Amino acid sequence: MRGLKSLRGALAMAADYTAPVADLRFCLEHLCNLEELATRPGFEEATPDMIAAVLEEAGRFAGEVLGPLNWDGDRQGAQLIDGKVQLADGFAEAYAQFVDNGWPALDGPTDFGGQGMPKAVGTAVNEMWHSANMAFALGPMLTQGAIDAVESHADEALRATYLEKMVSGEWSGTMNLTEPQAGSDLSAVRSKAVPEGDHYRISGQKIFITWGEHEAAENIVHLVLARLPDAPEGTRGISLFLVPKYLVNEDGSRGELNDLRAVSLEHKLGIHASPTCVMSFGDEGGAVGYLVGEENKGLACMFTMMNAARLGVGLQGVSIGERAYQAAASYAKERVQGGAPGHQGRVAIIEHADVRRMLLTMRALVEAGRALSLVAQAAFDRVATAADEDERKAQQARVDLLTPIVKAWATENGQEVASLGVQVHGGMGYIEETGAAQHLRDARITTIYEGTTGIQALDLVGRKTLRDGGVAMRALVAEMHGLIAELEADGKVADLAEPYSRAVAQAEAGLAWLLEHGAEDPEVPASVAVPYLMLQGTVCGAWVMTRAALAASRELASGGDDEAFLHAKLVTARFYLDHVAPRATAFLATVEAGSRGIGDLASEAF
Amino acid sequence: MRGLKSLRGALAMAADYTAPVADLRFCLEHLCNLEELATRPGFEEATPDMIAAVLEEAGRFAGEVLGPLNWDGDRQGAQLIDGKVQLADGFAEAYAQFVDNGWPALDGPTDFGGQGMPKAVGTAVNEMWHSANMAFALGPMLTQGAIDAVESHADEALRATYLEKMVSGEWSGTMNLTEPQAGSDLSAVRSKAVPEGDHYRISGQKIFITWGEHEAAENIVHLVLARLPDAPEGTRGISLFLVPKYLVNEDGSRGELNDLRAVSLEHKLGIHASPTCVMSFGDEGGAVGYLVGEENKGLACMFTMMNAARLGVGLQGVSIGERAYQAAASYAKERVQGGAPGHQGRVAIIEHADVRRMLLTMRALVEAGRALSLVAQAAFDRVATAADEDERKAQQARVDLLTPIVKAWATENGQEVASLGVQVHGGMGYIEETGAAQHLRDARITTIYEGTTGIQALDLVGRKTLRDGGVAMRALVAEMHGLIAELEADGKVADLAEPYSRAVAQAEAGLAWLLEHGAEDPEVPASVAVPYLMLQGTVCGAWVMTRAALAASRELASGGDDEAFLHAKLVTARFYLDHVAPRATAFLATVEAGSRGIGDLASEAF
Repeated sequence: MRGLKSLRGALAMAADYTAPVADLRFCLEHLCNLEELATRPGFEEATPDMIAAVLEEAGRFAGEVLGPLNWDGDRQGAQLIDGKVQLADGFAEAYAQFVDNGWPALDGPTDFGGQGMPKAVGTAVNEMWHSANMAFALGPMLTQGAIDAVESHADEALRATYLEKMVSGEWSGTMNLTEPQAGSDLSAVRSKAVPEGDHYRISGQKIFITWGEHEAAENIVHLVLARLPDAPEGTRGISLFLVPKYLVNEDGSRGELNDLRAVSLEHKLGIHASPTCVMSFGDEGGAVGYLVGEENKGLACMFTMMNAARLGVGLQGVSIGERAYQAAASYAKERVQGGAPGHQGRVAIIEHADVRRMLLTMRALVEAGRALSLVAQAAFDRVATAADEDERKAQQARVDLLTPIVKAWATENGQEVASLGVQVHGGMGYIEETGAAQHLRDARITTIYEGTTGIQALDLVGRKTLRDGGVAMRALVAEMHGLIAELEADGKVADLAEPYSRAVAQAEAGLAWLLEHGAEDPEVPASVAVPYLMLQGTVCGAWVMTRAALAASRELASGGDDEAFLHAKLVTARFYLDHVAPRATAFLATVEAGSRGIGDLASEAF
Repeated sequence: MRGLKSLRGALAMAADYTAPVADLRFCLEHLCNLEELATRPGFEEATPDMIAAVLEEAGRFAGEVLGPLNWDGDRQGAQLIDGKVQLADGFAEAYAQFVDNGWPALDGPTDFGGQGMPKAVGTAVNEMWHSANMAFALGPMLTQGAIDAVESHADEALRATYLEKMVSGEWSGTMNLTEPQAGSDLSAVRSKAVPEGDHYRISGQKIFITWGEHEAAENIVHLVLARLPDAPEGTRGISLFLVPKYLVNEDGSRGELNDLRAVSLEHKLGIHASPTCVMSFGDEGGAVGYLVGEENKGLACMFTMMNAARLGVGLQGVSIGERAYQAAASYAKERVQGGAPGHQGRVAIIEHADVRRMLLTMRALVEAGRALSLVAQAAFDRVATAADEDERKAQQARVDLLTPIVKAWATENGQEVASLGVQVHGGMGYIEETGAAQHLRDARITTIYEGTTGIQALDLVGRKTLRDGGVAMRALVAEMHGLIAELEADGKVADLAEPYSRAVAQAEAGLAWLLEHGAEDPEVPASVAVPYLMLQGTVCGAWVMTRAALAASRELASGGDDEAFLHAKLVTARFYLDHVAPRATAFLATVEAGSRGIGDLASEAF
């Protein structure tokens, strides 16, 4: 056993996480134009120095506090004991420290104790939390979504009572949407809300409630979709309610327990340390709940938190990918196996071209996903601080367009990257102790929750493209086109012009096809939706990587101080265009097949 | 909880397995020309009626005996207790029944009690075992490989002593290759063999030994790679030994325990019920082992079993895919969610175009992989029964060429299919009880063991293509070309000619590129190997699906009796050409990028 144990000890167990601070800063600076953002009212504190300090400090917290709990948390998992969730060892303490250090408040609203940093900066930090420990980071992510919904839609009194403690993280938040018969189709929600004085009585069962119950926060603020007694059927009869675990006294202190409980935890493929609860509301007559927004308009309110959460889940794809990449690169540098051209004797497997191809693929997908996530969030920040309605509208259209792409494309990539991470580890990757398999298991949920890839694709094709006749997408394509001349003018990256132009032409062709054929047959948009989304995601990736290459080239020319980083960025961008961008051709061909054959087999024949 | 429990009870738990007998028969008949094979000496019993009976009976055994143990076996796993492996409940009993029914002997050598059925038929049956219960089926698969090696390379005495009991399944077999420092690189094997009279004393540690220890068989025949004291370094100093768990007395009865033991079991991502052992040989002075083949020629002997095992693992990709497809299709027909064009009210999700697209993708990949596996095995059967040396050589070249493609391409697809299976299940797919996640976990090993995808690709590019100057591949491409005229002449499938021709042209272009540039730089073949393999696999899939479509069309024209099946085959083949074949374009573009950029980043920069 000695040989095996030493192999594992030295190479494989619980690889450390080091936050990619340099790339995050690069993206914020060169792709998000943080400098301009920091001139806007409310963002004045987001100076380069401040951002650098925040990222360094967050990186330390992620690497030192959250990262080391990740693998043990997976093994131990969360458990439900006597109706209470027992978190994995160390999670409650880490959460307390997380709150003490003020991390939840980083990009929270200043009116309620937040620091008001741009969402782009919050996203850079969130990437680290999810890389370090996705099961942990899901809690704060859901709280963030709940804050958004309460801030945007709840009345003054609810905001005053709940927001400050949610922003600080003392209280956490959840989204209670799904019921056994109502998953992607929320119109089937059956939970009930009966008016009673200034509040409602909520009853029903919700499933898949992330961090639905735990003791790490003093209180849990559930946002629950339910129906009023006289509500119309379907999605127009759904209302949103704030249902606290503990009622809140007049003076803001915690009151008695509300009528709700976790009745079981799911036994999941991954994110074992994140308690996924079946929640029961109203077993004793009805949980006290408060209306958020208007009656029967709950779905619109829920979309406020869903949209933020969708960008957040897309980011998880990047985060898991980054962690898997780091583990694989570290293993590949230490594991010695076989010889390679130009080397004497046995070599570390990173010297094998195919291992390098896998690592570069991982790296290219992660960097592209990161860049696109941050670009989308920066647009979000520009909506919030728009100088005029034109800018607000344009930026909003960009956010709306990119949200389903980031969510679906980055999470599909996250799985590819995590799976490549296992592959780089060879046989050791299949052994749980190595940790590579956990990333794959954790990543697998990301293309499902907050709207599956299929749901995102329908959103992109329908609401985000066909509805506006392709205006938002055309604006993006025009911007993509603009880079071609820049590339051709820059000797260092001029060779990217050809593959990049080809990719952009494919995005355009896909859009043109959709606009021309999308209305022909109602089956067409649904049939092509996922390949169309993957096409546009692939080309968006080429767009941000090309922008990154141009920026790196300019920095190198002007004597940028981190030459190794800038060189690596050029290599990764080129690799993306050589190895990832060609996928656009295949996706486009599939789009152009339309709905052909999709309906040719009777359901019974499957 | 009622709602959730009933959802699970009705829809999700432990989906049954039904063997795809019709498609297996179709492939054997129309793609493997079983009729001709059955005219060859030794295969006379492989009549259509006999084959039909075998497939039906095997399908029943797989569905009724092995399938129901699959999920519980995963949960319980194999355990090592006091040095003995305790299999999951029911596995030992199922194995006894498997042996009693004579299944292991189906395609075994008739000289040693086998029924001598063609390997193509054995493969059709093996697909069922692996679909029903991959963890179980790994045991017989490894035994099969060991039989091949002993039959081909061991001396008369060893064959007489061991083969009959291995063929019957009373004794099982293993492959002991890997050591902590010797994974893909077997030259680093350190286990020792010291001559002693008519045998050797073996010592050393082996890892990742599938079914290395268990009590279901009376004896276990380990085939072990080790080095003689004076052996040269590297792969030319490795010898193969037969090392039985129990020594065998002169009269063939079981003797005393040999000096070997399982010291631990791995904690794996999947195939939990398959005991993956760390084996220790010679702790008490040396296990008795017998030389198989010549001294220092062990690697060549091992390749006999490896090649068969590689085709077997490729088949596992198909098997898991089939099981995942069945589970997903069954869920999609019962899960009601949302509305769809042309339907009133809520519908089963199979009516949603995107769900159908996923199911058709799964189906197309599985059917193509099945067809290619069977075609490869039929070529193997033709090698064994060749009328002359020309035929033998041609068929051997075909087997050699297809082996790495089947192994790598079908297993990569197996993972894609299993992952789509989870996706079709939505949130339920992430819950272990549904069973979809197990398929993904089980499938994940298949691109790793018996040579990773990268190793297969190097084999394809180097030994199977560059070494013969592309002769074998050109012969295959010529055969592919031959179908184009057939397609054009058949009104029912003439529309496939265009996408099919495009795919074949891409296979040709990839081959031409490799032959032209493969020798330019030693990094080129290794850099392009995996995309090249995936390109050729994708086009091989188009080839067999096109052959299947032509056969289905002919059968339909001549009033074939299973019209629904034949129609479905046409739909699936078309779907393959529309949705899967276009990937060849992307793979080709990546191949054509050669080694560009692969070496541009220093190892430390990863």
